[in-house]
Amino acid sequence: MTKGTLYGLGVGPGDPELITLKAHRLLISAPVLAYPAPEHGDSLARSIVASHLSGKQTEIAIRMPLDLNRFPVEAVYDQAAIDIAEHLDAGRDVAAICEGDPFFYGSFMYLFGRLADRHEVVVVPGVSSLVACPAAAGAPLAARDDTLLVCPGIMDEALMRERLANVEAAAIIKVGRHLDKVRRVLTELDLVERAHYVEHATMADQVVLPFSEIEAAKAPYFSMVLIHRRGEAWR
Amino acid sequence: MTKGTLYGLGVGPGDPELITLKAHRLLISAPVLAYPAPEHGDSLARSIVASHLSGKQTEIAIRMPLDLNRFPVEAVYDQAAIDIAEHLDAGRDVAAICEGDPFFYGSFMYLFGRLADRHEVVVVPGVSSLVACPAAAGAPLAARDDTLLVCPGIMDEALMRERLANVEAAAIIKVGRHLDKVRRVLTELDLVERAHYVEHATMADQVVLPFSEIEAAKAPYFSMVLIHRRGEAWR
Repeated sequence: MTKGTLYGLGVGPGDPELITLKAHRLLISAPVLAYPAPEHGDSLARSIVASHLSGKQTEIAIRMPLDLNRFPVEAVYDQAAIDIAEHLDAGRDVAAICEGDPFFYGSFMYLFGRLADRHEVVVVPGVSSLVACPAAAGAPLAARDDTLLVCPGIMDEALMRERLANVEAAAIIKVGRHLDKVRRVLTELDLVERAHYVEHATMADQVVLPFSEIEAAKAPYFSMVLIHRRGEAWR
Repeated sequence: MTKGTLYGLGVGPGDPELITLKAHRLLISAPVLAYPAPEHGDSLARSIVASHLSGKQTEIAIRMPLDLNRFPVEAVYDQAAIDIAEHLDAGRDVAAICEGDPFFYGSFMYLFGRLADRHEVVVVPGVSSLVACPAAAGAPLAARDDTLLVCPGIMDEALMRERLANVEAAAIIKVGRHLDKVRRVLTELDLVERAHYVEHATMADQVVLPFSEIEAAKAPYFSMVLIHRRGEAWR
């Protein structure tokens, strides 16, 4: 019997129309759909594609426990890989979806690492938040011979200051509770006026503001600060 | 009269199916299509979407002269902006397409810089080469708290060595004639075995190889070297 293929589909940043034709085609034709989800409640990735679904697919929700000390993420993906492999071995294709792009800080890579050596895996790239946020902000990310740094908000403060001092363009992702730290770094580097803030890009609750207008100490997890040293990348 | 809207559409890395549903919808409904093109011959961006076109649109080819000293790129975009503004002022929407994403080293931002202050502009993000190359290579780009550096091949050699020494993940874009330099840097940093080479990702002439198997001194312009310090981003 021919084994099934595991499709890793990037479904884009939130707007259901920002899925590619290819991911859409594979999404609706696979008999099995797998997606990351919180311990309780709805999956963001599934909600992005919900309007495209027939409701006739077998669904595998990969639920992340709130208490990762009690039940580590590795164990969750080990079990998910076993569940998915059963379908693949039985000849059924599985569409595993994730927000944004599968390989840009995406959850799909943990399935990839567990299944790619024994199963056929096809990865379909998606629109990542790294390009969705600049489009939402009307702020080009990088141009010409710019060096671009992508760093997570959790990065050490001194290190963040050092690294940002040396690049033309930067995106600080997963800002979350690190917003105050980011503000201190940008202030010290005199980059506050060159920075945009975006949360939940392309979603119904999208927020886009000049960074200087952000007063909160915390941001959501899905937030990003975009910085360009020239102010406008095309100059 | 209602003025037209300028749509900046990222059409993805090359596979015509890697355009988003949104860009596809706006592409086929705009009465005017604009795209970058070489001085002579076909436009890559137009060729990516050619199978989607009706042939009934007014087309504006923004042709880049080979000799940019004789006729600078700024003058080309100044004229293109004038041509596009005429259509917008007459109430016609214009779809300006570019390979990959409009704001990730994309040509669209030069139109954006000339037109966004006086016209309605909507930017639709696309699948950039930055995520298409890792998908093609089966090599996740970045995960967890990785810092990711994107730098152009033209970067100074000492600087490239210094910057690559400090990040978990990196993508060297527009490798072109700088392949030998990239090889020296990766060799000195003992990263050759951690690097993938991709050219023309998702196109008919796609090449994917471990970097260690590349022997040429030069690469095409549309090529990328992907590096991950842990070897595999999900570990």
